[in-house]
Amino acid sequence: MPVQTAATTLVSAFDNVPGFAKGLVRDLRVRWALEEIGRDYALHYLDAMKPKPDGYHDWQPFGQVPAFDDGELRLFESGAILLYLGEQDERLLPRDPAQRWAATSWLLAALNSVEPALMQIINLDFFFAGQPWIPDARPSFAALAERRLRSTEAALGERDWFAGTFSIADIMMACVLRNLNHTDMLAAFPALTAFKARAEARPAFQRALADQLAGYREPAPTGE
Amino acid sequence: MPVQTAATTLVSAFDNVPGFAKGLVRDLRVRWALEEIGRDYALHYLDAMKPKPDGYHDWQPFGQVPAFDDGELRLFESGAILLYLGEQDERLLPRDPAQRWAATSWLLAALNSVEPALMQIINLDFFFAGQPWIPDARPSFAALAERRLRSTEAALGERDWFAGTFSIADIMMACVLRNLNHTDMLAAFPALTAFKARAEARPAFQRALADQLAGYREPAPTGE
Repeated sequence: MPVQTAATTLVSAFDNVPGFAKGLVRDLRVRWALEEIGRDYALHYLDAMKPKPDGYHDWQPFGQVPAFDDGELRLFESGAILLYLGEQDERLLPRDPAQRWAATSWLLAALNSVEPALMQIINLDFFFAGQPWIPDARPSFAALAERRLRSTEAALGERDWFAGTFSIADIMMACVLRNLNHTDMLAAFPALTAFKARAEARPAFQRALADQLAGYREPAPTGE
Repeated sequence: MPVQTAATTLVSAFDNVPGFAKGLVRDLRVRWALEEIGRDYALHYLDAMKPKPDGYHDWQPFGQVPAFDDGELRLFESGAILLYLGEQDERLLPRDPAQRWAATSWLLAALNSVEPALMQIINLDFFFAGQPWIPDARPSFAALAERRLRSTEAALGERDWFAGTFSIADIMMACVLRNLNHTDMLAAFPALTAFKARAEARPAFQRALADQLAGYREPAPTGE
């Protein structure tokens, strides 16, 4: 959980984001992993709507969050941080080689085969919102996203988790699927819908989400 | 190098792709890494334009390439395969923890912070080509891609490689930047342009590219 006192583990996060982004920002992935293993962490808060302070780009080159520092090493990219934490704790990444590399393959699949397609829906619906070409463009991007969801649904099948036991692959895939929370696109995929609910029901996720939301300075806007 | 005889390491690749994709398909990343460490491999060829054979989705859930099998483990996702090879050979992933995790952070950055923005240019220019909304949409996507390139350029600075010495991070970033080969977008970024040329000058890259191109059944179309 986040602590006010000096913690060894430091995670960067935003304390001010647009309403649609609350509950989606990628520090959630790292908070969730830390909650799963019961490790305290401190927060380095930034305002997403303002230029980043001098030096932050040395830690996170894109000016995004999360960046991570445990006193031993500084890392960036949620995927790299989860791999690092996974190596430290088998509750996040199984030690059996076949399971470990299945989890690693699925972590990368979430980040490079699924999220890029889903993020375009976020781009069209929020970042580019109001541009006149969007209604014509959206079906092409939605078809691409649905194709990736269909493959992911088929691969998960009847299993609870992507690599046998719960792992960083599931943290990543559940967070990636949350990018569609403002749509009904996931409803056509019952296995993924059940997977996401199963992941979000974990107490560690609930704590991480509540702590992320509690960290925002302003109340969420009501409606659009 | 690719061999006809029984090799322990097997990589899936396409032997038939649209002209624009030649030299860009992601098996190149794995071929390049294997060439860097001098490991022979055999190819499992598929036709990108046809349905995949029964069972291939069990190996690569999205029906894409590359998938990887070394007799010990089966993996998919180019990023996961490079991490796996990196763990086996320090010429691909340095053993010093700070360098190792810097390389891992940059590998993930290439896949999740840079490639998703650059791939949209490929989507607009090739996969969605001809749709009437594209001329209006392209500037928004180009601005996003250029923002990511600007951060990457600044982070690389005067260094030769992203994590000190050459690593899988550089294989990944150079291959990701190649997605813009059909544009002049990279010309505004001299450090990235020099980095890409430096990476592509490596004999291992040259061999991997020549072997990928030699594997296509049909000659590349001339012009558009």
